[in-house]
Amino acid sequence: MRVGVFGLGSMGYGIASSLLRAGHVVAGQDVDARRMVDLQAEGASKQAMDEAVGQLEAAIVVVLNSVQTEVVLFGDNGIVPRLPAGAVVVNCVTVAPDFAREMAARTADHGVHYLDAPISGGSVKAAMGKLSIMASGTREAFEKAAPVLDVMSETVFDLGEAPGAGSAMKAVNQMLAGTHIAAMAEAITFGMTQGIDPETFLKVIPKCAGTSWMLENRAPHIADGDYTPRSAIKIWPKDLGIVLDIARAASFPAPVTAAALQQFISAAGMGLADEDDAAVAKVYARCSGLTLPHEG
Amino acid sequence: MRVGVFGLGSMGYGIASSLLRAGHVVAGQDVDARRMVDLQAEGASKQAMDEAVGQLEAAIVVVLNSVQTEVVLFGDNGIVPRLPAGAVVVNCVTVAPDFAREMAARTADHGVHYLDAPISGGSVKAAMGKLSIMASGTREAFEKAAPVLDVMSETVFDLGEAPGAGSAMKAVNQMLAGTHIAAMAEAITFGMTQGIDPETFLKVIPKCAGTSWMLENRAPHIADGDYTPRSAIKIWPKDLGIVLDIARAASFPAPVTAAALQQFISAAGMGLADEDDAAVAKVYARCSGLTLPHEG
Repeated sequence: MRVGVFGLGSMGYGIASSLLRAGHVVAGQDVDARRMVDLQAEGASKQAMDEAVGQLEAAIVVVLNSVQTEVVLFGDNGIVPRLPAGAVVVNCVTVAPDFAREMAARTADHGVHYLDAPISGGSVKAAMGKLSIMASGTREAFEKAAPVLDVMSETVFDLGEAPGAGSAMKAVNQMLAGTHIAAMAEAITFGMTQGIDPETFLKVIPKCAGTSWMLENRAPHIADGDYTPRSAIKIWPKDLGIVLDIARAASFPAPVTAAALQQFISAAGMGLADEDDAAVAKVYARCSGLTLPHEG
Repeated sequence: MRVGVFGLGSMGYGIASSLLRAGHVVAGQDVDARRMVDLQAEGASKQAMDEAVGQLEAAIVVVLNSVQTEVVLFGDNGIVPRLPAGAVVVNCVTVAPDFAREMAARTADHGVHYLDAPISGGSVKAAMGKLSIMASGTREAFEKAAPVLDVMSETVFDLGEAPGAGSAMKAVNQMLAGTHIAAMAEAITFGMTQGIDPETFLKVIPKCAGTSWMLENRAPHIADGDYTPRSAIKIWPKDLGIVLDIARAASFPAPVTAAALQQFISAAGMGLADEDDAAVAKVYARCSGLTLPHEG
């Protein structure tokens, strides 16, 4: 089918590549023209998006935040008024549930379906077509999106017909994932103050009750001193910020998440925004006079 | 061999039972005489501990904290001066690494070996002889303790010859375990404010990047409304308190753990000290007007 991918960052580019490999007709759009050229070299359509948009059957949105999402969908050059009736918008951006509900309603006004479909799994799984998708929307939205969801994902969690439920589950997952990264960084550096080096930490903790998915995934980056961004620090002030905005609006206090957020803000403030999110360990190291493996 | 077990709470009782099943001669001691009687009904020695202590080859200490440990080892009726030379003290209590080093040195003065051997796994695994043990001590201490470690545990992490290393790793594990329980409670109740019920949370999150060992173990208690204490709230003000004492002594700031500790203190303050530690979710529920499953 004819698919547009809006936003060709590490997640969007991987999704677009997966769709191309599966034989779909893909048009990509990004503020960085080089990414569009790279995608065209992999077989993407060279048609201008302004021409392509009227024929798209699915529009996958993988931009940074809700402001960018609204620009793509309903801005001066927004796509929703120009999509054919019956097309589906698959919004993969992490946004607040209220925003998802608003976008779904405005999209429906144009006879276009909307799937609230935040993704999880990181850029490597995006490129492999093995994301997890937390999706909610009408049955028609799911049906229209099925061919692209099949290609993008290993698992689709169907969270019902109400737009916003997918975004709510994504917020819950991000709350835990971000908090677990900070907790891992706190524990691995605390261990160093007690003579436990990160290699020993990694031999023991993954077999104990203190382990987490994020610990097993991210702690090796610290032991190896490798902060190449698989997922960057800068994601977390944004995503945990969204989580805590939603929580505050619900009069829900979230002190553990709030403490974790401060550590990511410190990391960004130390100039580490574009490093791997495991670099939050550097905040702890610098605040306690430790030298991390392969540092200095 | 002849083994004394000091402290017959849920962990110590399980350890003593495992040793009896394996054919060891076991004497148990607890402030609660009924537990000693129950253990004798399972085959424990009826000899008074004051008589038994001079023949013990191993003394396993499973009391609540360092104050009780010091009383057992070196109090008015302390066992170390009365143990035979060459016996081994296996200290399973969660204590600060400095305390472990001090106990090891004082024990050595009496010709007795000391294994710094905190345990992980909970009462069910204690009863099955499937604990994880984070152990450090001299090679002689390990050799003397080997027959009882074999019976108690599924995994023994050998953290080297320095007493204190086992306690340090235990502190790292408790830091993570306690923080992950609080984070789970925060996320499952936050999800409820967004229309995600705990059953749906449990279908999705364990398959996503936000999962942790503690989440998968404890979140079902909340979904089921079952706060029978497998591991009680009151453990955490103590264990995270020890962790943060050690951290402060090392000038190491641990803001995420500190936030988690406050939630367990609130739970204890709400009268939940003897409930399962998943009851920390009630702190979140009461502070945000939520009703947990099977409540009220």
